[in-house]
Amino acid sequence: MGIVGAGQLARMLCEAASALDIGTVVLAEELGPSVPNAGAVLEGSPMSEGDLRGLAGACDVVTFDHEQVDLTALSILESEGVTLRPTTATLAMAVDKGSMRRHFAGAGLPVPAFAVLPSGSLGEPLGTSTATTSATATSSATAVAAVTNFAGAHGWPVILKATRGGYDGKGVWIAKDVVQAREICQEACRAGVPLMVEELVDIEAELAVVVARRPRGEMVTWPAVETTQVDGVCREVLYPGRLSPDVAGRAELLARQVAALCEAVGVMAVELFCTGGDLVVNEIATRPHNTAHWTIEGAVTSQFENHLRAVLDLPLGSTDPVAPAVASVNVFGPSDGTPPGPRLPEALAVEGAHVHLYGKTTRPGRKLGHVTVCGPDGTAVREQAWIAATALGTPVPPGIVVPTALLGAVNGVGR
Amino acid sequence: MGIVGAGQLARMLCEAASALDIGTVVLAEELGPSVPNAGAVLEGSPMSEGDLRGLAGACDVVTFDHEQVDLTALSILESEGVTLRPTTATLAMAVDKGSMRRHFAGAGLPVPAFAVLPSGSLGEPLGTSTATTSATATSSATAVAAVTNFAGAHGWPVILKATRGGYDGKGVWIAKDVVQAREICQEACRAGVPLMVEELVDIEAELAVVVARRPRGEMVTWPAVETTQVDGVCREVLYPGRLSPDVAGRAELLARQVAALCEAVGVMAVELFCTGGDLVVNEIATRPHNTAHWTIEGAVTSQFENHLRAVLDLPLGSTDPVAPAVASVNVFGPSDGTPPGPRLPEALAVEGAHVHLYGKTTRPGRKLGHVTVCGPDGTAVREQAWIAATALGTPVPPGIVVPTALLGAVNGVGR
Repeated sequence: MGIVGAGQLARMLCEAASALDIGTVVLAEELGPSVPNAGAVLEGSPMSEGDLRGLAGACDVVTFDHEQVDLTALSILESEGVTLRPTTATLAMAVDKGSMRRHFAGAGLPVPAFAVLPSGSLGEPLGTSTATTSATATSSATAVAAVTNFAGAHGWPVILKATRGGYDGKGVWIAKDVVQAREICQEACRAGVPLMVEELVDIEAELAVVVARRPRGEMVTWPAVETTQVDGVCREVLYPGRLSPDVAGRAELLARQVAALCEAVGVMAVELFCTGGDLVVNEIATRPHNTAHWTIEGAVTSQFENHLRAVLDLPLGSTDPVAPAVASVNVFGPSDGTPPGPRLPEALAVEGAHVHLYGKTTRPGRKLGHVTVCGPDGTAVREQAWIAATALGTPVPPGIVVPTALLGAVNGVGR
Repeated sequence: MGIVGAGQLARMLCEAASALDIGTVVLAEELGPSVPNAGAVLEGSPMSEGDLRGLAGACDVVTFDHEQVDLTALSILESEGVTLRPTTATLAMAVDKGSMRRHFAGAGLPVPAFAVLPSGSLGEPLGTSTATTSATATSSATAVAAVTNFAGAHGWPVILKATRGGYDGKGVWIAKDVVQAREICQEACRAGVPLMVEELVDIEAELAVVVARRPRGEMVTWPAVETTQVDGVCREVLYPGRLSPDVAGRAELLARQVAALCEAVGVMAVELFCTGGDLVVNEIATRPHNTAHWTIEGAVTSQFENHLRAVLDLPLGSTDPVAPAVASVNVFGPSDGTPPGPRLPEALAVEGAHVHLYGKTTRPGRKLGHVTVCGPDGTAVREQAWIAATALGTPVPPGIVVPTALLGAVNGVGR
């Protein structure tokens, strides 16, 4: 199996591949410590047709650690008979949020109200010539007019999003009025970032459902989980969290519809909002996803093993949880920039804590790993996971409400 | 972490090391497919002081995939300050079964009645000169006399064992009378194999307990499992099998005593016989062991992760099982020599089957992997594990009694 990209998803895919004795080759932009467990590493860019061709020549099937790939180059390879799983058609859906929203809305799937801003705002990165600046001003004014129009129908504030390239909260802004909208549009136009506008959904809960789908359509889903995002970044994933069986069941059904619509192959994540008791589809990812890292210890078959199985067209494994409650908390670099490795003794002393570190260079606020705890009680597993994550240096963000007992423990153990 | 040896234990250690971002370097006799997931591989021999020194120089702590090592070379490195876990003193106990038995009997631990055959039988590999042949005849006669003497006290048949180098049933023979004993002793003396004699224990059940122990003595044990050996080779491991809580508890206590006596560091396996309701210690291994592969999916913390933790002096993880019953069945090469990889689709179609393949070249009767199934019912998990193992080509040996339902399935699915 060839993997484009050498992040933590590639690393955990290689862990799963080892058990099944499936050979792996990774296309990495730099030879580094992220995927020491790959069978082989090719140095190259996911934006280079030549490098992608080199990877394709070294494996039977190509899959992806991320979506920042050159779709045109991949299309050429695909037309030459290279097996891409997922296909470029599926990847294109994940890469362009505007196209994704239109496609889903067209199929009758619930999505937030949205509008893709006029193509005039789709500027290329710009120089400093007067002519270009003037063009930018025009594009920007057109975009602001479209946003104002949208807000007239759906109210302020609105969400502005880069349709491409955003992730982990990057490329998403809130505009509470036309002044803020203008600032954002001008900045985006100057940077050549295409935008869409969306209603600000009144979110009661954020959910994610991960699906694994084989080439001919057979699919399985893991149970829906509740996720907590702070500044657009996922901090914790709770199974079952506060989700009722009814909401979870509807979310799983929606996710299956999305996966079928996208003709996903491999693992696909569908992130949803629960608003006024209804569900709307927010984001998708056509690869293993942070919201299903809990499945490594928390489900009979992990998302990584089922991604392999799906991509290689092998029978999919059971997605049943192995415990009544599972919590997974992401590990982030602390403000002093110290790495988590030397703090392992404190984290491993936490009963039931499964620690995963990704081998990434530590920077304040960078995602470096995750901790999963399984058990009979949702409150207890969440508490244990947070204690271990903070022991590894993770700051508790202001948006996260942690139990009082935990705060005491955090102050004692983690700082 | 440095690992001497590049078999499946090294491979599964590297899988566990990846999650915790612990770097690994393996000393392998040949660069091959067994440990593609190691951080680095050094080509060299576990019998070469220079190669072992090279490994020691590339890591902080050295541990072992097997016991076929040069203890003299390791002692020298240890005296120079290299950290070996386990130490050469512990390894020596596992390497020489005669020394192990004497040590355990001396400490009052229950072992089968035994005698190490006189040192005259400890011949070196021999040439063909008349003088040497005569010396062999003398040694052999001394050994036979000792065996006859032992049988006078404990009855025929007796077990003859190579005190060094035997594993997986190799180096163990049954002698039902003095004629057979003479043949075995002569052959062993010619080959320079040192022998011991043991009573043939009336085995009601075979058990194994695996312990993880830190350098300062803190230890944990996984629950005792029932094992089934055919011709000295482990074919299946069942938790809890037919073991009563009382027998399991006594086995775990004995295993802890053995680990403390050996001053084990890392994982240590203790294999026992249950005979007349009593337990006797049969074999030990001072490393991760086939009888605890079930812990990868069947326990909160696997033997591989706890071996890492113990060897690196990190807190040990919970050894609690995650299901009421777990069965692990070894995968062997079928008589036609076909590899298990192409049979993966059939095996992965078995509900709940966790397949592990070790990347070894297929030969008839060679151990190539294992399958684990966890669930609420012991009979069902055993059946599922056997169905998956046979789907991968594993022959059902004559000594194994499989449920009738399984035989039907095996004939349908596996052949």
